[in-house]
Amino acid sequence: MGHQREPFIQSRIFSPGPTPIPLEARLAPLDSEVYHRTDDFYDLHLKCSEMLQPIFGCNRIPVILTCSGTGGLEAAMCNLTAPGDEVIVVNGGKFGERWEELATRYGCDTRLVKVAPGEAATAKELEPVLVTCGSPRAFFIQANETSTGVRHPVAELAAQVRAKFPGCLIIVDAISSLGAHPLNMNIDGFDCVVSASQKGFGLNPGLAFVALSDRAWDSLSSRPRFYFDLAKEFKGQSKGRSAWTPAIGLIQGLLVVLQKIHAVGLDAMVRNHEQLAGAVRASLPAMGLELFARTHPSNALTAIRVPTGMDGTKLQAVIRDRYGVTIPGGQDELKGKILRLSNLGFVNRFDLIHAISAIEFGLRDMGHKASSGASLGSGVKAFMQALDS
Amino acid sequence: MGHQREPFIQSRIFSPGPTPIPLEARLAPLDSEVYHRTDDFYDLHLKCSEMLQPIFGCNRIPVILTCSGTGGLEAAMCNLTAPGDEVIVVNGGKFGERWEELATRYGCDTRLVKVAPGEAATAKELEPVLVTCGSPRAFFIQANETSTGVRHPVAELAAQVRAKFPGCLIIVDAISSLGAHPLNMNIDGFDCVVSASQKGFGLNPGLAFVALSDRAWDSLSSRPRFYFDLAKEFKGQSKGRSAWTPAIGLIQGLLVVLQKIHAVGLDAMVRNHEQLAGAVRASLPAMGLELFARTHPSNALTAIRVPTGMDGTKLQAVIRDRYGVTIPGGQDELKGKILRLSNLGFVNRFDLIHAISAIEFGLRDMGHKASSGASLGSGVKAFMQALDS
Repeated sequence: MGHQREPFIQSRIFSPGPTPIPLEARLAPLDSEVYHRTDDFYDLHLKCSEMLQPIFGCNRIPVILTCSGTGGLEAAMCNLTAPGDEVIVVNGGKFGERWEELATRYGCDTRLVKVAPGEAATAKELEPVLVTCGSPRAFFIQANETSTGVRHPVAELAAQVRAKFPGCLIIVDAISSLGAHPLNMNIDGFDCVVSASQKGFGLNPGLAFVALSDRAWDSLSSRPRFYFDLAKEFKGQSKGRSAWTPAIGLIQGLLVVLQKIHAVGLDAMVRNHEQLAGAVRASLPAMGLELFARTHPSNALTAIRVPTGMDGTKLQAVIRDRYGVTIPGGQDELKGKILRLSNLGFVNRFDLIHAISAIEFGLRDMGHKASSGASLGSGVKAFMQALDS
Repeated sequence: MGHQREPFIQSRIFSPGPTPIPLEARLAPLDSEVYHRTDDFYDLHLKCSEMLQPIFGCNRIPVILTCSGTGGLEAAMCNLTAPGDEVIVVNGGKFGERWEELATRYGCDTRLVKVAPGEAATAKELEPVLVTCGSPRAFFIQANETSTGVRHPVAELAAQVRAKFPGCLIIVDAISSLGAHPLNMNIDGFDCVVSASQKGFGLNPGLAFVALSDRAWDSLSSRPRFYFDLAKEFKGQSKGRSAWTPAIGLIQGLLVVLQKIHAVGLDAMVRNHEQLAGAVRASLPAMGLELFARTHPSNALTAIRVPTGMDGTKLQAVIRDRYGVTIPGGQDELKGKILRLSNLGFVNRFDLIHAISAIEFGLRDMGHKASSGASLGSGVKAFMQALDS
């Protein structure tokens, strides 16, 4: 029963990157008669930069790089640290680990704040590291740890760091956070924020955005760097001219999604994420499911514990193969233990009703009691009621 | 006369990157419900890698990076050299200069072979550098110098280098050459070849391809690198798994263009470039124009001297503004002195008839005698006759 794939089912993905791409943004690159060394393209590029700026809340335009988000993280590391620099790194999951790897690879002297998966970093955990620090050059953290569905209280932690070390640069990976949670570099006192096109921006992967505070621009390190030379890019991009050939089609799409974000308004976009993620969380008990995050659950995605005794990898496969719905699972030691249901970007209530109903059918097929018989549909019902409250 | 823009004229670009993109490749990313951490996507990625391999003529799959071609050049530099390494760099234009800048930025000890713009590097120019070399780690060159429309005799020069220094790695920027000129890493004895998506491959910019010989794979240097870590990428991509989020839409398009290239056949594709570029060169005298290349003209693009006394920047503007045709000009010291008419990638005779006729109208508007009155159209006529010969 329900084990055959219904005809006409189409694939849908609910991942925290790539996220849904509006059709208009997908259509924009169909005009491929665009050369990037023309005044028209310089205007387009600069317009994108100027529309990105208020989303980061910084004083100068963010730099647009043709690379994945990780390239943006590397750009932050190699432009803002020098070998031997003491740095503080918060590691609460796979992406915190990426900061740690980057710092190690680049010869920094790393002071680690290790945070248990599913928990947000706390002032209490940070304090002993601050006490033993000499004079840290930079503090690295995720705004949203995508691997565990946890949002670190990053503005508070940044204030704590700067209270003790006013010169320490606050460097925030907001790749999966921007648009989903409030962030403003000037208000929050961040010195570098990195994001990427396939996240809250609702575009195909291939662009990273790196925004710097005035003091970060004034304290670039000297290291061999070329493709990720932020000063060179900033100088050119202030006139719409990227140093290297940009991903033209993605820049064409970027204008479209930025216009949408500005039309909605950043505050309304963040509220949408709060409401949808809140309703997803509220739907879990009705399905006999539990939230993985113990504190500060993300509003970009919800990490859901796979019921004890159930094979999470098999559950994922059932949901994908029978119902066409791809929901990423856990990575590394969390493999098979969680589902990571995303509502990041251009997502609405009907998208999530689709996803939650697929999870319920999947749980039913796996023999999960809370999602069978008269209970089937309870998750969707709870989600809808949460939106109404 | 002819100074107003005709209604219904559409923009066309004839640049050596971005090149024309087949509609099917532009349509492929419209299906955005594709997650990159699935078996289906791994299959797609690996298929692309396997179809790229014979185009490079190497023993292992090339690595696909999400970046511009310059990112691919940096990957070659930072994976294959260490600080202090002696390297030989051929600089015959803006892209040779890029190798030189990269080598300097990465702390290599550079032996420069400086070649006059418009000329190909010769054995005679290379010899004195080889005589003074100690034990060079690598030899860097362009297969095609895009800024001057010159093709270096790269296989011959590589043989000359390796005759004296068998251990020296031969590293070839074939970004604007692959598909337009014969190249086979195994036959030519190349150790690293870099190319990019928006060139002969007929795709949007955003992907670079880096192929290594077995001995290059066996002699990777140790340097801080992260995003451009070729060994890490190779290991993953051998199973279709890129280390970082790939430009999914471009990978979808890549399969389409690779299928087209394989359907045509690489040899036939190279012959098409030879014929079209040869016919473009043959059309120049009829328009009173001269080739910029003094030796080894490129089959990917034709650098055309702007007639003496004519403002080349204005000519470009007339061709673009009145006739909708964008033809890149010279860069840096060649600005205003040349037009660079490309036939790279998925280009056919009618495309070039369009471009050459626009050049003729532009020359006529600029008061160029050889393209006015009864002479107008002589360039197109000569082009057509050259194809017939």
